[in-house]
Amino acid sequence: MSIPYKAIDWKNEKLVLLDQTLLPVQEAYNTYDTVLPLIDAIQRLVVRGAPALGVTGAYGVVIAMDQAVREHWSSAQLEKAIDDIRDARPTAVNLAWAVEKIRTRISEGRDVVLAIAHQFAEEDCQSSTEMGIIGADWLINALGKKPLTLLTHCNTGSLATTGTGTALGVIREMHTRGLVKEVYADESRPLLQGARLTAWELMKSGIPHRIQPDGAAAMAIMTGRIDAALIGADRIAHNGDSANKIGSLGVALACHEAGIPFLVVAPESSVDRTISSGKDIHIEIRGDEELTFFKGIQVAPIGTKTFNPAFDVTPAKYISAVITELKAYEIGKGETL
Amino acid sequence: MSIPYKAIDWKNEKLVLLDQTLLPVQEAYNTYDTVLPLIDAIQRLVVRGAPALGVTGAYGVVIAMDQAVREHWSSAQLEKAIDDIRDARPTAVNLAWAVEKIRTRISEGRDVVLAIAHQFAEEDCQSSTEMGIIGADWLINALGKKPLTLLTHCNTGSLATTGTGTALGVIREMHTRGLVKEVYADESRPLLQGARLTAWELMKSGIPHRIQPDGAAAMAIMTGRIDAALIGADRIAHNGDSANKIGSLGVALACHEAGIPFLVVAPESSVDRTISSGKDIHIEIRGDEELTFFKGIQVAPIGTKTFNPAFDVTPAKYISAVITELKAYEIGKGETL
Repeated sequence: MSIPYKAIDWKNEKLVLLDQTLLPVQEAYNTYDTVLPLIDAIQRLVVRGAPALGVTGAYGVVIAMDQAVREHWSSAQLEKAIDDIRDARPTAVNLAWAVEKIRTRISEGRDVVLAIAHQFAEEDCQSSTEMGIIGADWLINALGKKPLTLLTHCNTGSLATTGTGTALGVIREMHTRGLVKEVYADESRPLLQGARLTAWELMKSGIPHRIQPDGAAAMAIMTGRIDAALIGADRIAHNGDSANKIGSLGVALACHEAGIPFLVVAPESSVDRTISSGKDIHIEIRGDEELTFFKGIQVAPIGTKTFNPAFDVTPAKYISAVITELKAYEIGKGETL
Repeated sequence: MSIPYKAIDWKNEKLVLLDQTLLPVQEAYNTYDTVLPLIDAIQRLVVRGAPALGVTGAYGVVIAMDQAVREHWSSAQLEKAIDDIRDARPTAVNLAWAVEKIRTRISEGRDVVLAIAHQFAEEDCQSSTEMGIIGADWLINALGKKPLTLLTHCNTGSLATTGTGTALGVIREMHTRGLVKEVYADESRPLLQGARLTAWELMKSGIPHRIQPDGAAAMAIMTGRIDAALIGADRIAHNGDSANKIGSLGVALACHEAGIPFLVVAPESSVDRTISSGKDIHIEIRGDEELTFFKGIQVAPIGTKTFNPAFDVTPAKYISAVITELKAYEIGKGETL
């Protein structure tokens, strides 16, 4: 399926990012060739989604190397800039993974590093396609070859990867096979990636869908409206515990209670086999103003404290399977990664 | 506990309403002595909450009678005005119930009707106090006499009643007894009654609290941050199934899984013993624009469809107890109402 937009592109020796903070109202592209604005873009979620952040981090190292030459940085300055890119979003393991992997090749020169960044992007795109096929096969095997109503959370599509997406990649593949009746997309507070981005992607691609408040997911699931739920992951532990956008755990609990499949779809690079369980996953806590203000409009008393974790961790016991580009790990049957 | 504001008050022969559409930014009081502006206030949610709407409707009949005298209405004109108050919000059963109950007493004269309206307000206030005591006793009995962290959803406080509130009334009573460590208030999308109103009430009353996205409730509960959750109800069936603001069911499922108490707190007038289970509760589906726009700001592609139920129904099996002004119904132990 051809995607009519590119979230990440390398053009004229610069990184071009579709500014996701402006969607769905405006489709605007920003250009980056210095480190600080790129870090700002990562932190402001101009670009987001675990795989997309990995690719962005890889190109970020190229940008840092180019800036180091232009501005005569010491090698310590360059290393510091690369550290800062790596650490721009602490929970995003793909970002750190890609940056660390590519920095070992710096001695081979800028063009080699750029070629590797391109390769990361290409591999990510290919891995979306493979996850889509494996996930769609899994669903058909579990539920039969019939049109399904699928629930998803946050945005895991072509805005979060350089390909068709993770969870949304599976949904796209199901749609290509004529097996999507409708998609229920959680709006995904506080940043509304579901309402703003997933709805935009699904509309662009002509896949039937509706959005719902996150609080409506349990009702949609428990009243039989949903056949299966699919989410992405920012980090998956060896036992299958999966960190993903806040609200995922509630979806998993409802699926568990309703007895319908709950799939986590993510590339192998999101699997962190050095951590045995979700207990070791550090959760980023975001600022109060994300909840007390909405686009500059005050929606809570000034000074209200918040509980605003970026992610939650869904324990393996609530996950039917983890789909990667290599295989479906049957977590629900006791398999680990 | 004394409440430092009054959502509804009768002063100098006029009705005074705290304008809840302006909270939490501004605390403004509007005065009503004519019918049309009062109907507008009800429709714009200047006043909301099932018990508060009942009391408002009762005073509305007095306002209509006074205006009828001043403006020499025919009795048909008066009846029409009272019909219009009753029908201002078709789904608010308390409003219609109170208006119909009080209109049967019109022949006894304006002062009798006013006395009955005062009595409605007083009874509602008293019933909050009683729910508070019964609910607090229940929590202490279940969890011991120690400070607790309590989760609540939507707004069920002194802005929704003429007293301390339903679920929030229990929380206030616990605070008075020194037993509230902290309150986690779900922001309660799409209308953010938790962020806008509950946080404002808790701040005014000096009760420690924080707000969270609805999607964070499952994490807060499953990671041991919460000791018990308390919600209100719009309608409770004979078997204990309870309709409440969308998002309540997800909170209940997480509490069930975590093994912590989940309480529904509502006056006896919300119990509908004519319906045997939640299957018979009609759920209001609200418009798409409540989700696709936020205060005039577009947050989803134009034309996006939604699933936007006002309420969900929590099955009795996930409810520990229903607290009314009469008693704690031990739903978790198989008791019905």
